[in-house]
Amino acid sequence: MPFMSDNAAPVHPAVWAAMQAADAPQPPYDGDNLSAAMDDAFSALFGRPCAAMWVASGTAANCLALAAMVRPYEAVLCHELAHIERDECGAPGFFTHGAKLVLAGGDHAKMTPQTARDRLARVGVGVEHTPVTALSITQASEAGCVYSPGEVAAMGAFAREKGLRFHMDGARFANAVAHLGCSPAAASCEGGVEALSFGFVKNGGMGAEALIFFAPDMVEATRYNRKRAGHLQSKGRYLAAQILAMLKGDLWLDNARRANAAAAEIAAAAGDRLIHPVEANEVFVALSAGERAALRGAGFAFYDWDEATARFVTAWNSEEAEVMALAKALRGV
Amino acid sequence: MPFMSDNAAPVHPAVWAAMQAADAPQPPYDGDNLSAAMDDAFSALFGRPCAAMWVASGTAANCLALAAMVRPYEAVLCHELAHIERDECGAPGFFTHGAKLVLAGGDHAKMTPQTARDRLARVGVGVEHTPVTALSITQASEAGCVYSPGEVAAMGAFAREKGLRFHMDGARFANAVAHLGCSPAAASCEGGVEALSFGFVKNGGMGAEALIFFAPDMVEATRYNRKRAGHLQSKGRYLAAQILAMLKGDLWLDNARRANAAAAEIAAAAGDRLIHPVEANEVFVALSAGERAALRGAGFAFYDWDEATARFVTAWNSEEAEVMALAKALRGV
Amino acid sequence: MPFMSDNAAPVHPAVWAAMQAADAPQPPYDGDNLSAAMDDAFSALFGRPCAAMWVASGTAANCLALAAMVRPYEAVLCHELAHIERDECGAPGFFTHGAKLVLAGGDHAKMTPQTARDRLARVGVGVEHTPVTALSITQASEAGCVYSPGEVAAMGAFAREKGLRFHMDGARFANAVAHLGCSPAAASCEGGVEALSFGFVKNGGMGAEALIFFAPDMVEATRYNRKRAGHLQSKGRYLAAQILAMLKGDLWLDNARRANAAAAEIAAAAGDRLIHPVEANEVFVALSAGERAALRGAGFAFYDWDEATARFVTAWNSEEAEVMALAKALRGV
Amino acid sequence: MPFMSDNAAPVHPAVWAAMQAADAPQPPYDGDNLSAAMDDAFSALFGRPCAAMWVASGTAANCLALAAMVRPYEAVLCHELAHIERDECGAPGFFTHGAKLVLAGGDHAKMTPQTARDRLARVGVGVEHTPVTALSITQASEAGCVYSPGEVAAMGAFAREKGLRFHMDGARFANAVAHLGCSPAAASCEGGVEALSFGFVKNGGMGAEALIFFAPDMVEATRYNRKRAGHLQSKGRYLAAQILAMLKGDLWLDNARRANAAAAEIAAAAGDRLIHPVEANEVFVALSAGERAALRGAGFAFYDWDEATARFVTAWNSEEAEVMALAKALRGV
Repeated sequence: MPFMSDNAAPVHPAVWAAMQAADAPQPPYDGDNLSAAMDDAFSALFGRPCAAMWVASGTAANCLALAAMVRPYEAVLCHELAHIERDECGAPGFFTHGAKLVLAGGDHAKMTPQTARDRLARVGVGVEHTPVTALSITQASEAGCVYSPGEVAAMGAFAREKGLRFHMDGARFANAVAHLGCSPAAASCEGGVEALSFGFVKNGGMGAEALIFFAPDMVEATRYNRKRAGHLQSKGRYLAAQILAMLKGDLWLDNARRANAAAAEIAAAAGDRLIHPVEANEVFVALSAGERAALRGAGFAFYDWDEATARFVTAWNSEEAEVMALAKALRGV
Repeated sequence: MPFMSDNAAPVHPAVWAAMQAADAPQPPYDGDNLSAAMDDAFSALFGRPCAAMWVASGTAANCLALAAMVRPYEAVLCHELAHIERDECGAPGFFTHGAKLVLAGGDHAKMTPQTARDRLARVGVGVEHTPVTALSITQASEAGCVYSPGEVAAMGAFAREKGLRFHMDGARFANAVAHLGCSPAAASCEGGVEALSFGFVKNGGMGAEALIFFAPDMVEATRYNRKRAGHLQSKGRYLAAQILAMLKGDLWLDNARRANAAAAEIAAAAGDRLIHPVEANEVFVALSAGERAALRGAGFAFYDWDEATARFVTAWNSEEAEVMALAKALRGV
Repeated sequence: MPFMSDNAAPVHPAVWAAMQAADAPQPPYDGDNLSAAMDDAFSALFGRPCAAMWVASGTAANCLALAAMVRPYEAVLCHELAHIERDECGAPGFFTHGAKLVLAGGDHAKMTPQTARDRLARVGVGVEHTPVTALSITQASEAGCVYSPGEVAAMGAFAREKGLRFHMDGARFANAVAHLGCSPAAASCEGGVEALSFGFVKNGGMGAEALIFFAPDMVEATRYNRKRAGHLQSKGRYLAAQILAMLKGDLWLDNARRANAAAAEIAAAAGDRLIHPVEANEVFVALSAGERAALRGAGFAFYDWDEATARFVTAWNSEEAEVMALAKALRGV
Repeated sequence: MPFMSDNAAPVHPAVWAAMQAADAPQPPYDGDNLSAAMDDAFSALFGRPCAAMWVASGTAANCLALAAMVRPYEAVLCHELAHIERDECGAPGFFTHGAKLVLAGGDHAKMTPQTARDRLARVGVGVEHTPVTALSITQASEAGCVYSPGEVAAMGAFAREKGLRFHMDGARFANAVAHLGCSPAAASCEGGVEALSFGFVKNGGMGAEALIFFAPDMVEATRYNRKRAGHLQSKGRYLAAQILAMLKGDLWLDNARRANAAAAEIAAAAGDRLIHPVEANEVFVALSAGERAALRGAGFAFYDWDEATARFVTAWNSEEAEVMALAKALRGV
């Protein structure tokens, strides 16, 4: 029973259908009418003008955004558990040509204005120090926790105060919005986010993430950088089709709600073994090696977060029976 | 009638079927059984052990190969019309961290040992000059022409003599092999090619190219570089599925033969207006502005190569009626 | 008798004296009063506000300037014989993170608006092509020839028309100004030059070149980039001392005049064997292998430019007797 | 009275003399006989074959060494207070094209095998993580403390065990060796160090540091990288002259002993206010803001390390009277 990660779930039928409907030849790269429709689709969704580009991976989305924000001698402030720091093989350093990541703390993998401020205070002034000129937060965080609109806005205010550009890694942005019950804008751009990596792959897509720019000055460089990084696929219409299908009828939100609901069931079963509040589709549970072995013996697949913690991830396709089986098993340990 | 480019053709039905058959969840990235099968599939195809990785674009394939071949202070020798020089927005400079391309001439966008040797002779010796340590040729060339096995081997001998690693950009490798009627190995690795960008997107795939390493020392760095460039997609099984479907029953070769045959029909009609021999699926025809306007008025889409030349590209799905219509129109000008 | 290069000449006594006068401890890096005086000194020299930084080499000066002008996915237009293209081991690619050099022709290693325009016309439009956003010319050129104020201004007008930033590699700027008999401003910034690598090492200095910015927007990034490249030396006062000593009493101009005069004597002797007009301190002479061997046998050191050409370089310290000996020898071949 | 930093001290008379003796023209770059003598001079000093190159700054020396050790997707393990992490504006990221620094702790700015091991254990395995392939320690450390030969050897054993290349930042290597009373080899290469940034600028030089390679495989790439970074100065003989003058008669050791002795006097006066053992030429003293103001009022210049700590640095030219005055003042606070 698969609770390893949402990044291996199947493709949603509506996405399949949209891709196949895109089969007729069209101009290559992003010259097709689906790619051209993305700006409008996301502008409508966020209620403000924005530019949207497809890319094949969250790493590409995040790093193209950062490359548009910092110069090579500058630095990005992020949480010490951020995906860009821990899980992308130094990709930010590649795309930004060596810019540094400056790491702050914060409970549940979320920075606060205070943890950000404290870290920034320790960055020296002068040409021997890389100036921090961008801020990146993850919505939902690596611990499966969500920044409320107020928390996003507080980070945005901090960014403005310090002159930092503001990026949001939204690999699980859908799950965050589903949890918050607010508009996607309230969870991002209304709080000051200037570039958003809006994830679809973990939520029913195949190989397309949307990189959304609310700040128009970042767009042109990114068009070149996307090509230069080999991410301007020639049959881009199939990526645009995936994304537009996810937006249609708020499929992205339905899928995320389903995943969140499954996670909530598991969380309820885990009780006081929970390491973090369960606000999205990830459940971190304190389990001993023996307990984990027993669960695996019973057919559950999941990830060892550290020696004492297991991570269970649900997805749009998590089956109720399997979720209930896991919940029951967790109650039994 | 679409003769603009093969890079916008639809996805072949067998590829669609294979992708959908890959829908069941599997370990992410390249941990799935389809990705794992690629090494064996290509080793069988080429008759020697090789390592195969999927990436989303030819630019990524080419540049990851070059990054495994040269250090940032070195240089790659290629034809002045090569795609890596002219059409990738400096992507080789990005992936290699600034290595130079050193440009040689040669008829029909093909280098010869002589043009390569002449160019190399003009590269200075000493630390003020970037040493050339790799060679890249395009099979079929940007002019739609093909290196025979003997020509590949001659370039390979030159590379060995000069201590150059040897890369082949095979965005249209299938068309080249279909033209030659030889084994894929004879058109590449038997002549000394150490890394091959084997294109599928232009030939019936959706968004998957294969990067083949015949030289095992280049593999490990490339695994990291692929991740670092955002090209290790989490649902990699859908890329592997495309490629394996193309290999099955030599679909790649059938598709290429079909495209080549269509190009041959057009070429026959173009007669002595042909700029280059037609050996793959591209037809370069001397046409005045007026003649081109007339053809466009008649419904034909194609690319203006330069002021006096139109380029017509066929694909696996070129329809016989449309090809005949174009042939007839060309005879009429 | 040394006519190999001016880059190995001794240090001028006035420079030695100024360095030793700088021995008293002062704040490190460029916090000392000599470094602080550079902006004013060059602003006075050029008759307009400018920012001046010392660096240790012409390569560093050139490449820091280019790094302030182009983004990694852009390109610099320069002559195909430019030092940045041929003699710096790809340093521009290092400092700019992979930006390309686009090469134009032109007699005597000088571009003209026409050669520049022709080359630019062949650069494609769209994200697959690196946009050219900077222009770099060499004053005096690699052939020892000089852009007149009118020629500089014509290139500057071209740069403005095309939206290009404008850099001048002035490794031998002093020799050019000495030849022109105009103000240094007329030979550079009055014609639109925005950043000038003003060479002193070849003209009596030890290890200090001045990087002059007439465009204030390039300064801040360069302060960081200089540090980041290891070029912010801690005892920077010794570099500033060299440069200020060269400016004092127009020593830079006197030294260049002396070198130019020596070159003119040699040029007169070379007669119609001259390959290029002799306008600075380099003399290119058609000489057969045998003739060159004979000259070397007679004690003259010089550089083989190509199989049929010898290059003789004079310097501030060229001795009259040696110059006359060379002139006599050349008359005798 | 100057206790701000040793990086602004004057040039030693013997160094001046050697530079002036190098005035006669010689082949440029490192083609002169002084540069050529460096390998032998350092091989004799260290009792084993090594290659030595001059560069203008410690940042350049450190980063060229790291660039020879790691690929762009790899990482360097160093102390969290290391100069390469805190004071070089991200220069390691520039020279290595984005490699990361992975930070370990340890008292007195010294790593131990245990702190290194603990940190390494937290680095994940797999292509999403940058593999650590090099280790860099600072001798003497940023806290003015020294690794004993045994401690260096322990770090070297750790590096070998983990397959890490081993770099030593020796900006104050002379002070460390003077403290240890051992051979320079015992303080570095005998313990496994493969590349050493051997500092001279802080110890009586002007603008020349030596980069020493005990591992021959790193040399060739570095020759190119030095040129490419603009650090191959054309009048390199003046840099070689400085270094050779410092080696002659062990001037480097005499100068360091003098600086260390001055620091010891100050340390004795600081008593239990010392933050770190004083083993080289830096004295860290707990002093309140008021106490520091009083000292400054009395004419002492020094650096505020943090809110509660002042740093006093001595140099080869520290004057006995000034040192005694400071010692007396510290006893009085």
